[in-house]
Amino acid sequence: MKSAAQDDIFDICEALLSGKGEATGLAQARVIFDRYARLTPEKKHHFFSTLRDQFGVDRAKFEAAYARDAKSLRKLHAASEPLSQELIRRLNRAPGGTLRLVSMRQDLLSCMEKDPELKPLDDDFRHLFSSWFNRGFLELRSIDWNTPASILEKIIRYEAVHEIRGWSDLRRRVAAPDRRLYAFFHPALLDDPLIFVEVALTSSIPGNIDDILASERYMLTPDQASTAVFYSISNCQDGLRGISFGNFLIKQVVEELQRDFGKLTTFVTLSPVPGLRSWALAQQEAKALPERLDKVVQQAEAGANPAELSELTARYMLVSRSPRGGATDPVARFHLGNGARLEQIHPSADTSERGQKASWGVMVNYLYDLATIEHNHEAYSTADEIIASPVVRRLAKTR
Amino acid sequence: MKSAAQDDIFDICEALLSGKGEATGLAQARVIFDRYARLTPEKKHHFFSTLRDQFGVDRAKFEAAYARDAKSLRKLHAASEPLSQELIRRLNRAPGGTLRLVSMRQDLLSCMEKDPELKPLDDDFRHLFSSWFNRGFLELRSIDWNTPASILEKIIRYEAVHEIRGWSDLRRRVAAPDRRLYAFFHPALLDDPLIFVEVALTSSIPGNIDDILASERYMLTPDQASTAVFYSISNCQDGLRGISFGNFLIKQVVEELQRDFGKLTTFVTLSPVPGLRSWALAQQEAKALPERLDKVVQQAEAGANPAELSELTARYMLVSRSPRGGATDPVARFHLGNGARLEQIHPSADTSERGQKASWGVMVNYLYDLATIEHNHEAYSTADEIIASPVVRRLAKTR
Amino acid sequence: MKSAAQDDIFDICEALLSGKGEATGLAQARVIFDRYARLTPEKKHHFFSTLRDQFGVDRAKFEAAYARDAKSLRKLHAASEPLSQELIRRLNRAPGGTLRLVSMRQDLLSCMEKDPELKPLDDDFRHLFSSWFNRGFLELRSIDWNTPASILEKIIRYEAVHEIRGWSDLRRRVAAPDRRLYAFFHPALLDDPLIFVEVALTSSIPGNIDDILASERYMLTPDQASTAVFYSISNCQDGLRGISFGNFLIKQVVEELQRDFGKLTTFVTLSPVPGLRSWALAQQEAKALPERLDKVVQQAEAGANPAELSELTARYMLVSRSPRGGATDPVARFHLGNGARLEQIHPSADTSERGQKASWGVMVNYLYDLATIEHNHEAYSTADEIIASPVVRRLAKTR
Amino acid sequence: MKSAAQDDIFDICEALLSGKGEATGLAQARVIFDRYARLTPEKKHHFFSTLRDQFGVDRAKFEAAYARDAKSLRKLHAASEPLSQELIRRLNRAPGGTLRLVSMRQDLLSCMEKDPELKPLDDDFRHLFSSWFNRGFLELRSIDWNTPASILEKIIRYEAVHEIRGWSDLRRRVAAPDRRLYAFFHPALLDDPLIFVEVALTSSIPGNIDDILASERYMLTPDQASTAVFYSISNCQDGLRGISFGNFLIKQVVEELQRDFGKLTTFVTLSPVPGLRSWALAQQEAKALPERLDKVVQQAEAGANPAELSELTARYMLVSRSPRGGATDPVARFHLGNGARLEQIHPSADTSERGQKASWGVMVNYLYDLATIEHNHEAYSTADEIIASPVVRRLAKTR
Repeated sequence: MKSAAQDDIFDICEALLSGKGEATGLAQARVIFDRYARLTPEKKHHFFSTLRDQFGVDRAKFEAAYARDAKSLRKLHAASEPLSQELIRRLNRAPGGTLRLVSMRQDLLSCMEKDPELKPLDDDFRHLFSSWFNRGFLELRSIDWNTPASILEKIIRYEAVHEIRGWSDLRRRVAAPDRRLYAFFHPALLDDPLIFVEVALTSSIPGNIDDILASERYMLTPDQASTAVFYSISNCQDGLRGISFGNFLIKQVVEELQRDFGKLTTFVTLSPVPGLRSWALAQQEAKALPERLDKVVQQAEAGANPAELSELTARYMLVSRSPRGGATDPVARFHLGNGARLEQIHPSADTSERGQKASWGVMVNYLYDLATIEHNHEAYSTADEIIASPVVRRLAKTR
Repeated sequence: MKSAAQDDIFDICEALLSGKGEATGLAQARVIFDRYARLTPEKKHHFFSTLRDQFGVDRAKFEAAYARDAKSLRKLHAASEPLSQELIRRLNRAPGGTLRLVSMRQDLLSCMEKDPELKPLDDDFRHLFSSWFNRGFLELRSIDWNTPASILEKIIRYEAVHEIRGWSDLRRRVAAPDRRLYAFFHPALLDDPLIFVEVALTSSIPGNIDDILASERYMLTPDQASTAVFYSISNCQDGLRGISFGNFLIKQVVEELQRDFGKLTTFVTLSPVPGLRSWALAQQEAKALPERLDKVVQQAEAGANPAELSELTARYMLVSRSPRGGATDPVARFHLGNGARLEQIHPSADTSERGQKASWGVMVNYLYDLATIEHNHEAYSTADEIIASPVVRRLAKTR
Repeated sequence: MKSAAQDDIFDICEALLSGKGEATGLAQARVIFDRYARLTPEKKHHFFSTLRDQFGVDRAKFEAAYARDAKSLRKLHAASEPLSQELIRRLNRAPGGTLRLVSMRQDLLSCMEKDPELKPLDDDFRHLFSSWFNRGFLELRSIDWNTPASILEKIIRYEAVHEIRGWSDLRRRVAAPDRRLYAFFHPALLDDPLIFVEVALTSSIPGNIDDILASERYMLTPDQASTAVFYSISNCQDGLRGISFGNFLIKQVVEELQRDFGKLTTFVTLSPVPGLRSWALAQQEAKALPERLDKVVQQAEAGANPAELSELTARYMLVSRSPRGGATDPVARFHLGNGARLEQIHPSADTSERGQKASWGVMVNYLYDLATIEHNHEAYSTADEIIASPVVRRLAKTR
Repeated sequence: MKSAAQDDIFDICEALLSGKGEATGLAQARVIFDRYARLTPEKKHHFFSTLRDQFGVDRAKFEAAYARDAKSLRKLHAASEPLSQELIRRLNRAPGGTLRLVSMRQDLLSCMEKDPELKPLDDDFRHLFSSWFNRGFLELRSIDWNTPASILEKIIRYEAVHEIRGWSDLRRRVAAPDRRLYAFFHPALLDDPLIFVEVALTSSIPGNIDDILASERYMLTPDQASTAVFYSISNCQDGLRGISFGNFLIKQVVEELQRDFGKLTTFVTLSPVPGLRSWALAQQEAKALPERLDKVVQQAEAGANPAELSELTARYMLVSRSPRGGATDPVARFHLGNGARLEQIHPSADTSERGQKASWGVMVNYLYDLATIEHNHEAYSTADEIIASPVVRRLAKTR
């Protein structure tokens, strides 16, 4: 049985949709957001289920459309729009509505972990967010030491790959002459970034994250640099999960860097290999590894850091495939899908606990070469072909 | 037969949609916009027809969805999305894409005048524009004498009701102590306004537009004013026709003015009555007018300005109805639909040629009273009840 | 006899100086400004005379300093500072004080026209203004079509050489691709410019102002231009007369243009010759002209426009000297003093009434060549040598 | 004997002054700054002595003025201006000149510690800086969490009273709802603050700095506060020592706070008493203290914190006088000179080492009451009367 408060919230949702009382639509949207915010997790789950079940397609309208003009599938489309989509659009009209909807979807995603049947409702959010957070509406900003502290604080909080340990660490990443940080913003979220990428300007392709993050290090002036290294990419808004900006971000940053620093010739990542160790252990268990590599895994697990990890990694990257056909590694899927190529493998590149747990410290570079990016992308996305440098390809063939 | 250039444009549209070549999606969108811009009007029309016919719902996908899960109408909705919608979304990713799409729709609307069958395609534009130009994404700005000239120039150009005759006239409307101008902007259109409203601060409800526009007049300080008069509302973007912002604009401006000028008690329009004369002449022709009013029409046509025009106007506003049930007058439909009430009628309010042609110079006031706006709106939108002040109601009853 | 109100103003001046009541110093400054503003022109004159006479050097303090330490002339300097200087500094502390002082000096300059004995007081203003409007405190801004209308309006008003006839004319001067306008601003005067220069980008040295100001003309893109023409320089603040910014302005604009448009090779003015006609008529009267040139003057006065005006002008520019030794022409003194060289002479360059009256329409170009500017300046300022191109020098030698 | 490099620098100074080569004046100023920056401390000292000795008053010009017009002391003033003043003005024209001059004076002040004879030169700097940093040219800015990190970093560095221990501490002082920070900026120093004051909004007059600085504390909303406490005032630019902005800052901040938070009724400092302990120890040594207070000093030195410290402090503040007549305590001189009144004395208010060393932890409040500020100021500045609350006056009378 629904509680009175919850009855209320659906009544208001219906009122908001009915357009009766359009004049107070903003007020209604605000009330819905406020009531929603006070719901317990269980009630939130119930809220979402009810939206899915009772705010779906209006069957009468649908049947009418279907009967009246069976030929026009376009009409069918309009007639079959779930009411929840219109509801979300109307909620968005309230001041601060977009941010509240993003946070609402964050709750929905938690609910979905236990109840995957909520997916149809999430499809509505996702459909609208994809439209609203269309690349044409995003603004790229360079973040530096003149950026307001309130935004910098969020960068510290949102960094998800290589933790920023306080303001001095942040200062090294945004204010050093050979460091850059770029973020996408959306006008409706004001000063809350969507995603950002950290860039190191270097004189060669790096094989080690510790050197890049070191507090004491030799600094280049931008015009001494030949290489831009994307060493950390972080999504900031959980509620926008699955709405992809990363590919646009990297490509636009490459353009921006090329324009500002004419001497840059190489654009490359320094990336983790999050799935390596668990894949290798599973292979080991299944006795699927050649003896030599089996031994490498044993050594790695024992804390040694054998050079042959490169071969194991190459094999993981090039030979192993996900059930849907692409690369097994999620980070690889992202960069290969963008048209990058797997360039180098570095066995002792990340001494952090996290890096050890994921891949015994192995990191890799993906190369963004604008001349071949398109061809690579197509080869990967249509034929599951994994593009790698000759060095890496040779490593994968070692027995 | 399609020309080579046109084949091209559809091929690129398909490539953009296919996602093969996602990496160059922005480039493709740019090419499509550029080629489109060079098409003749006929070719543009053909472009739109082809989008409608060949970029509609993917029937195979639809049938599959329908067969596989007849119960899930939500899936049907997704499956029946016209390809043209996704195409528009992808075009929007290009730099300046939103503005180019708005201008593309302007062309589409011209084509539709001759070929109403293009409406299904326009529905796609309209659907996406409604979502993108959601009130939550709009920004209200006050326009004054510190606004860049490039924006002020657009205000001069876009004013559609009472022409702005040069910069001195503009200055009187934005820089006088008792005048204000507010506009909605969308982040993706930068400094191009969507709609704006001009406001006069006065000491009473005005019955004459000439006094408000006069170049020499007594000026109030804002704290002497009791009344805010919305004397001109102009939509700026033809390509956004039918995407409604006006109601939001007026309500937000009322809030803004209340906050800034505590002494304001009355919010009212001074509006044209564009349909009065043509309605009256048609009534006359149909011998549907009482003799007394028939005579009024004759006098008015002869250039006299009888006081009884008020009665005729009251009758037009309150008695006459559009086929769909609401008010006949388009401006009345807008304000009544917003919950305003018809407050006063002024027979000799607008001496301009345009005003004479439309309504022999008659203008009216609609009152925005936040306390009753909601109730009025509902009465009008659910029961076609036209809310008017007692004075106006009495006038309508005169025989 | 002094009126009560005037006694007051001096009492407050004394109170402001005494520092007794420092806490209300700002209030006192405000009162002085306000009372001052209400004075009649005569009272203003009296105000200034009193400042000069009663707010001069404190004789007791001076004698003490002089007696105690005859050697230290530095101390003498401090001891001999007129009280009026400290008064002006204290007035400047009030909000908006700087602007009010500038306008006060404008009044003082009018008074001085009738009463040159006020000069010592003006020296105080001039001394402090020179210090405050030091080049290091000025900000160069480019004025274009995105500049607020309130500033553009001032540009229209302040243009003193070639009148700007309304907003369309202004638009042609700031928004055309081959036109630029730069102004110096001072932080304490906010959005009120001090001086500005208008620049035309052209493909050759122009000989005619009408072509530059024409409403219909062929426009260059900036990269087609080889020449930047400074065709109008206007001082905006009468109250800053004699505080020189013009030389700094031109040199900084040359640097700015060189940086932004690499293809520019020539920087040149198109300048009036305001003293030509009156000089020539005086020469004629004094029978000091060779017969041939005497005839040229007669023809010019009769409305003809003989080509020999070039020779007359060359003679005026190169041969005639001011009593103090420099060039006779005030505009020539400015540009030659900056290190420019007289480059070309154009007989029919300015058809405006003003141009006819001043010089029968003759205009000239001064060339700013950064490589020789320093040498030219020194030659002119130390040896009164007037630097001119070979062509002009030859013209001057014609008999 | 002067080194070649130094000869050079004076030659360039003379060239800059001579105006010969005015066109390259900026370049010369830059060279002087650059050479100056490379000088050793000894050479800098020599640089300053030479400026004092050889760039003083031009004796010939002075004698001429004196002889020619003995009556006009104004002329004498102009004639006796040290060349060094004009030199400083010309140096200021270079880009960034003001900041470099401020830093040059910082060096001069160090030199003066060893060589007080440089004071006449410092008088020149001081005279010009007083004029340039006139209150009318200063801009008050509120510093908060939206301020760029580059400015916030300077606030951390410049805080001179209660050290800011890192970014979390800073955040508590600028981003808490009941904390504010205001700073004066000068346009020519861009984002480098001159002086700032930290403000706590509280519900009563505080008697303890630790409570205000505590990392965990109860926070008020601004509308709950009745009292604004100025708990720290820091000068930022050593090179501007002696150029007073503090009094203007406090008064303008009081006005700002009154406007923004209507409920504030009390404006008060929480201030250190830096001279208390050294004065008391000197008094003790001189046997000038009554026995009871002598014992208090002994106890305080022994680490106890007797309540009678209040009496000792009251005596120090009210009875002891500086040789020149004002209060002995430098902080007292500042606030009493501004017209504040000594309001309360708190014996155990500051547990920091610095506070213990200066005053055994005693702190006091000065009250800024706009209604009496003027009267207090005058009483103090003309009659050396130290204005204190009745409570404090009573304490001072205790034997």
